[in-house]
Amino acid sequence: MKIDDNFYMKLAIDEAWKYQLLTYPNPAVGCVIVKDGKLLAIEAHKEAGQAHAEVNALKAAFLNYNPNSVLKTKQNSEDIHDFLIKNHNNFFNDCEIYVTLEPCNHIGKTPACANLLKELKPKRVIISVKDTNNIASGGIETLLNENIKITVGVLENEGNNLILPFLSWQNKTSIFFKIAQTLNGATNGKISSNRGLAYVHALRDKIDLLVIGGNTIRIDKPTLDTRYIQGNNPDIFIYSKNKIFDKNIPLFKTANRKVIISDDLFKLLDYKFVMIEGTYNLLEKLKQRIDFIILIISPKIKNGDNASNEINMDFEIMHENYIGEDKIVFLKRK
Amino acid sequence: MKIDDNFYMKLAIDEAWKYQLLTYPNPAVGCVIVKDGKLLAIEAHKEAGQAHAEVNALKAAFLNYNPNSVLKTKQNSEDIHDFLIKNHNNFFNDCEIYVTLEPCNHIGKTPACANLLKELKPKRVIISVKDTNNIASGGIETLLNENIKITVGVLENEGNNLILPFLSWQNKTSIFFKIAQTLNGATNGKISSNRGLAYVHALRDKIDLLVIGGNTIRIDKPTLDTRYIQGNNPDIFIYSKNKIFDKNIPLFKTANRKVIISDDLFKLLDYKFVMIEGTYNLLEKLKQRIDFIILIISPKIKNGDNASNEINMDFEIMHENYIGEDKIVFLKRK
Ligand SMILES: [Zn+2]
Ligand SMILES: [Zn+2]
Repeated sequence: MKIDDNFYMKLAIDEAWKYQLLTYPNPAVGCVIVKDGKLLAIEAHKEAGQAHAEVNALKAAFLNYNPNSVLKTKQNSEDIHDFLIKNHNNFFNDCEIYVTLEPCNHIGKTPACANLLKELKPKRVIISVKDTNNIASGGIETLLNENIKITVGVLENEGNNLILPFLSWQNKTSIFFKIAQTLNGATNGKISSNRGLAYVHALRDKIDLLVIGGNTIRIDKPTLDTRYIQGNNPDIFIYSKNKIFDKNIPLFKTANRKVIISDDLFKLLDYKFVMIEGTYNLLEKLKQRIDFIILIISPKIKNGDNASNEINMDFEIMHENYIGEDKIVFLKRK
Repeated sequence: MKIDDNFYMKLAIDEAWKYQLLTYPNPAVGCVIVKDGKLLAIEAHKEAGQAHAEVNALKAAFLNYNPNSVLKTKQNSEDIHDFLIKNHNNFFNDCEIYVTLEPCNHIGKTPACANLLKELKPKRVIISVKDTNNIASGGIETLLNENIKITVGVLENEGNNLILPFLSWQNKTSIFFKIAQTLNGATNGKISSNRGLAYVHALRDKIDLLVIGGNTIRIDKPTLDTRYIQGNNPDIFIYSKNKIFDKNIPLFKTANRKVIISDDLFKLLDYKFVMIEGTYNLLEKLKQRIDFIILIISPKIKNGDNASNEINMDFEIMHENYIGEDKIVFLKRK
């Protein structure tokens, strides 16, 4: 197997996917640092307001050689920036820095990564995809002005897949579909492990609207909250022609939420970040509108409902992770 | 993400899985070499009679520093051994060598890896699982006698999964199940891409018996050969109570094969390496007898047969690869 730019960029991309959707309003970004051939850091941006991927990786790389440095105690992104600028002592001059997205060039909640890299003067910065965000872009220019060597477009297709969910969210209402199923496609009953459910609750905490079919509400009588992670409960859109529901179903009793019962899907556009939890039947109705699909697969075969009806869709697998024993697969339509 | 023994062993295990089943009568083995912190080689054993994983990795690592060495031209395992023993010049003394399986200690088709490592004196050899084969084992002892540092048991569960197919084959008749399906579990019609089909043909070339249900024969009228890779055609076992088949179906006209029509599954034990190509219905009948499952998943949703009937099985995902756009998942029963 070749150990080349593609190899190291793949490590950065895989690390970033672990925090996919959880970094909003920032994109998922990963960073790998190789110093004179030694792999020193594989890091990602984890949550808005926390350090960017580059900053996490620069810190980890520096600590790899200086494990007792006071840098260890610094969590705040601005503090890490300041420390590195004052104490780098040319440590990064023989480093190659792999980033899945062009380093940011504007000072937002944290100082700009391009400015930091400019000071640290790495040997080369390798970038998968350019930033198309007008506010944050310009990082490449900043680095080139400093005569830092730049390689752009490494694993560009994978890098574009990594930011696809973010771009769909940034530009308009982002709508994604979540299905939990067994290996053989059964979707009814309890499918996911508790870790899988906690992940779904983390997603519910990030979205502002959860769409679900009327039949599922009537049969499963769900709560649709975020109790596994104690997050925010999203508003609910029950997709149903028949507007009559038993108001004792727990979802109606969950605090701080609006419940819409409607068959007018146009109302979804009143929201910014929409997750549809459903079966393949609901997917058929909404397939033209979804930006991507999250498929959670439990490694079981069991008897169950898996009617695919008239659906015919081809996908590309953008990425896969594990959540405990369950798999999570990110798909986009071909 | 931690860059530690587990990280490097995972690279070795993933590389070995690419050649799973294709190395028989040898096990799938992977090897990674890190020299003074620099990742130099990620290699695997690819086919019986060719160099072992360690030899491929030692060669790649040496060439990484000496790209113009005459070693480049040496393909034969014995020649690589000889070259490295004469020309290593202590190159490997600061190397850490990760191997998924204890290095072999007997001289088979190729010289023993433990003997080679003994001469090259690496800093440390890290092993996922010990070799339980009485003929080849003893590699750890050979290295310890030379005062080479050994770490055993890194990612042991993953290492055991990697050799599970080989151990099932080594000890008895190995029986595995292959299913091709869409994301939603549909198994009828053309499912796999041409690259997926070529992989199935490579599997057929390795096995000695292919089992298939009588209904599939009657409906699909298959050839069941290895034309995509021009390999050997396995014998066929048609599982059917009704013994009458149209002998114009192409599988009966394929040269150099025996076709058995029977409902006596005990006859499978006359063979050493058996693949069952079937749907979930056939899996139900044979589930007590199978060692592992290969699930080929095409990233599509389509209307189709996916009756799981009365099956209830829980699995562990041992590994996953891609074949082109299709996925291949190795499962074992829990
Ligand atoms: Zn940044
Ligand atoms: Zn060997």
